Amino acid sequence: MGKETTRATIIREGARLIHKKGFNATGLSDILTAARVPKGSFYFYFKNKQDFGLAVIDHYAEAIAAMSSISLGDNNRPPLQKLADFMDGFTAVFAKMDFTCGCPIGNLMQEMSDLNEAFRDKVGSVYARMAEAIAQCLSEAQDRGDIPVDLDPTQTAQFILNCWEGAIMHMKVVKNDAPLALCKRMVFDHILNK
Amino acid sequence: MGKETTRATIIREGARLIHKKGFNATGLSDILTAARVPKGSFYFYFKNKQDFGLAVIDHYAEAIAAMSSISLGDNNRPPLQKLADFMDGFTAVFAKMDFTCGCPIGNLMQEMSDLNEAFRDKVGSVYARMAEAIAQCLSEAQDRGDIPVDLDPTQTAQFILNCWEGAIMHMKVVKNDAPLALCKRMVFDHILNK
Repeated sequence: MGKETTRATIIREGARLIHKKGFNATGLSDILTAARVPKGSFYFYFKNKQDFGLAVIDHYAEAIAAMSSISLGDNNRPPLQKLADFMDGFTAVFAKMDFTCGCPIGNLMQEMSDLNEAFRDKVGSVYARMAEAIAQCLSEAQDRGDIPVDLDPTQTAQFILNCWEGAIMHMKVVKNDAPLALCKRMVFDHILNK
Repeated sequence: MGKETTRATIIREGARLIHKKGFNATGLSDILTAARVPKGSFYFYFKNKQDFGLAVIDHYAEAIAAMSSISLGDNNRPPLQKLADFMDGFTAVFAKMDFTCGCPIGNLMQEMSDLNEAFRDKVGSVYARMAEAIAQCLSEAQDRGDIPVDLDPTQTAQFILNCWEGAIMHMKVVKNDAPLALCKRMVFDHILNK
């Protein structure tokens, strides 16, 4: 394997473990075993576990951006349909995972915000970009007159994303899609309805 | 110190550490040091770290119930004012803690749901009781005609609690009360308004 591939394997396997168990509960030895690389190889690519964790956040951000663009980036659909597709798309992903793991960025916001400033900065930036993508969609909806004129797209998008993350957290406990369905229904029937 | 006091000290100190760092990142030695007890004493009161963790969840549940009852239990106030007081009360607590730590139950739901069934069961029950307390408040509001008749109190309470937890998660990243204030405003202006 070339350099890029080994680094990518370590990140992919580490990302999978951290998504499931959290950053602190994932040991370096777990990552090495899953990626089938020796410790020296890990330290060739990453200064330390924090450096690795920050690369994993980039990996999550790319995966979320790619997944989000399928729905939010489909400009053949009306903006509110794009938002509904966004929620349905992630609900389908979570269903495939038996409602485990949840949002990797939400998990790290919860786990790491008070423990590591570099993590807090980075997950905060990724989360802000997620909110911006939803705000853009709401702006388009407002321009078409599909949502109330008195809703601020930026603030409303932030609220919807926070609700969605809270719903994902609850989903992890109840192990079904009811919290996600409830979030979608309340947002569309009570926040975005005219 | 008597038996009850030593056990209570271990739980209180452990609860404080777990609130800040999470369950997995809190080592037994950290707990022993903070509680100033020897390892043998810990194992006199708790079978293992899981057994201890479950007792810590009970401790959190009691603290949340006590804090919630100050607002939601004050029947001299109209029901919607009780809910506003509930949000303001917790916002003040979080402000005192410089917006660190967040909701101990939300944290454990996020961290432990996929790692330990006993934890998932227990935090799920505590969370359900939190939602019931809000649902009771919304039922009272509906009986007085203060919220729309078409809102289901149980579902709406669950949505509000999930939004609130998502807002707390975001608060941990931005380190201010803006997500909590946004949640309160959106809930009162767009969900509960008539």
